[in-house]
Amino acid sequence: MFNNDINNIVNAAISGNRRALSRIISYVESDHAETSNIISSIKDRIWNAYRIGITGPPGAGKSTLTNELTKLFLSQNKKVAIVAVDPTSPFSGGALLGDRIRMNDIGTNNDVFIRSMATRGSLGGLSKKTNDVADILSAIGYDIVIIETVGVGQSELDIATTADTTIVAIVPESGDSIQAMKAGLMEIADLYVINKSDRPGAEMLQTALSAMLSLKNTRTNDWHPTILQTVATDSKGITEMMEEIFRHKIFLEKDDALQNKRARNAKLRVKEIVESILREDVWNEKRTNLLTEEISKVLEGKLSPYSLAFMIVNSFNKA
Amino acid sequence: MFNNDINNIVNAAISGNRRALSRIISYVESDHAETSNIISSIKDRIWNAYRIGITGPPGAGKSTLTNELTKLFLSQNKKVAIVAVDPTSPFSGGALLGDRIRMNDIGTNNDVFIRSMATRGSLGGLSKKTNDVADILSAIGYDIVIIETVGVGQSELDIATTADTTIVAIVPESGDSIQAMKAGLMEIADLYVINKSDRPGAEMLQTALSAMLSLKNTRTNDWHPTILQTVATDSKGITEMMEEIFRHKIFLEKDDALQNKRARNAKLRVKEIVESILREDVWNEKRTNLLTEEISKVLEGKLSPYSLAFMIVNSFNKA
Repeated sequence: MFNNDINNIVNAAISGNRRALSRIISYVESDHAETSNIISSIKDRIWNAYRIGITGPPGAGKSTLTNELTKLFLSQNKKVAIVAVDPTSPFSGGALLGDRIRMNDIGTNNDVFIRSMATRGSLGGLSKKTNDVADILSAIGYDIVIIETVGVGQSELDIATTADTTIVAIVPESGDSIQAMKAGLMEIADLYVINKSDRPGAEMLQTALSAMLSLKNTRTNDWHPTILQTVATDSKGITEMMEEIFRHKIFLEKDDALQNKRARNAKLRVKEIVESILREDVWNEKRTNLLTEEISKVLEGKLSPYSLAFMIVNSFNKA
Repeated sequence: MFNNDINNIVNAAISGNRRALSRIISYVESDHAETSNIISSIKDRIWNAYRIGITGPPGAGKSTLTNELTKLFLSQNKKVAIVAVDPTSPFSGGALLGDRIRMNDIGTNNDVFIRSMATRGSLGGLSKKTNDVADILSAIGYDIVIIETVGVGQSELDIATTADTTIVAIVPESGDSIQAMKAGLMEIADLYVINKSDRPGAEMLQTALSAMLSLKNTRTNDWHPTILQTVATDSKGITEMMEEIFRHKIFLEKDDALQNKRARNAKLRVKEIVESILREDVWNEKRTNLLTEEISKVLEGKLSPYSLAFMIVNSFNKA
């Protein structure tokens, strides 16, 4: 694909051609060689949107929260893009179910774009691809990009390296596992939402969470995460949720905090791209063959896995 | 540390010095520069042990299963090492609780060595370190190395790249989420254990799981995973579990299947080491500074994240 073609398809997407947009996203999702050219061609627009991350355990109602939030943004004439990342494989059906609910509701609105990214077990490159897709949606003209991720393992930490505001959604039943609240999660949340808060246990969870947050070592000028209660299926608490997001946005925009946060995130992103380029470069045919040929010596105990690794690295550095 | 010192400490560990063994493991856990020398010095012994992986959701009783299995192996005069990997952070308490149970039971036995590896959110390098520790325990003279991992995200897939036999432990209550059984999990299990099978739902889960397994595309000569029911707290079904492990071991030892499986695993391991060396080499002070200096251009939209990444890769390749 020539640069000219990339410009054409990007311009078509900007002017509202959804098929062009879907095609661009498919390129970056499949790690197409043109990804770097596509992102480079829109580099001056990738920061245009405000990015909101929503994570939490399966069943916390993330899709419904996202839906309700989207409706509020739409009523303010914002264009909203939703990226639903489900790293738990297609078997869970989560991403698909969420999409179906959405499709009946906001999916037909011209100012909404929804994209699911499911993976088959492997988390490899998912964070890089999510960032690529968020960049494209920002550049194409969406005001808000919402990235929704099931909170398992690494994925919930990745979301914070993409989002300007990160929301952690939990349910009253999460109370049991409040001690299990991952250290990582505590560090990424800008806003806690106790969804389905009409169920028993919401108050107790809020108290416990408050207590935990108060133990956190924060400075006066730091952002202090709020805890909100919502019932997304009844649209309860959603306005407050949006107001909190805006309050956080205003907080970040003071004193360059947003720029600093985005700089931190962008550095992590560039690191990830560097490492993915190196991985691709090192595992060319020659060195993949070297690995295959020498592995029997490792199994025979004649060569350590480290010595073979250094052989391969040396061959790479001299190439 | 000189090679001589490494040999001394390794020899001390082999002759039964537990403090020496703990010290070696601490080196590799902290990614000490000597890790590669340590593994190289034992390269002819790293395959001596049979490696068993146990994974499954939190609460599946993995620790108790491991305990009971260990007792049976001990009664056969086997030396057993247990590596308990908890990637869900110290907050969950899982690894610690498991250890406490173990300590009262088998932890004081001289033929048992137990090591917990907990991580604080980050999964980075955990699989590499687990392999290093398993290699050391193999070389030191343990007959069986059991690697126990909480099944979240990537960790459950990593375990299969270390183990000769991989056991997936579930409970009757997992029935609901049988569709959520990850594609990856289905591919790694050599043996399914429905633990706590005195609770309602065990039969139904077994039927559902059987049905799912029968849909799998396998050839006649492939290993067909068995599904066992256990009540680990009452030592029920553990003998059958051990027999299945041995049946799988005998299966693997026919026709070089074990060698082929270990070759596949060893290749993945060498790949991981290569990539960790490259990561360390690329992020030297010079290029870390380059990243910090140029990131503002990315935020200003003058430089794309990809262009900056290629700048850094080029500087690395020319170094």
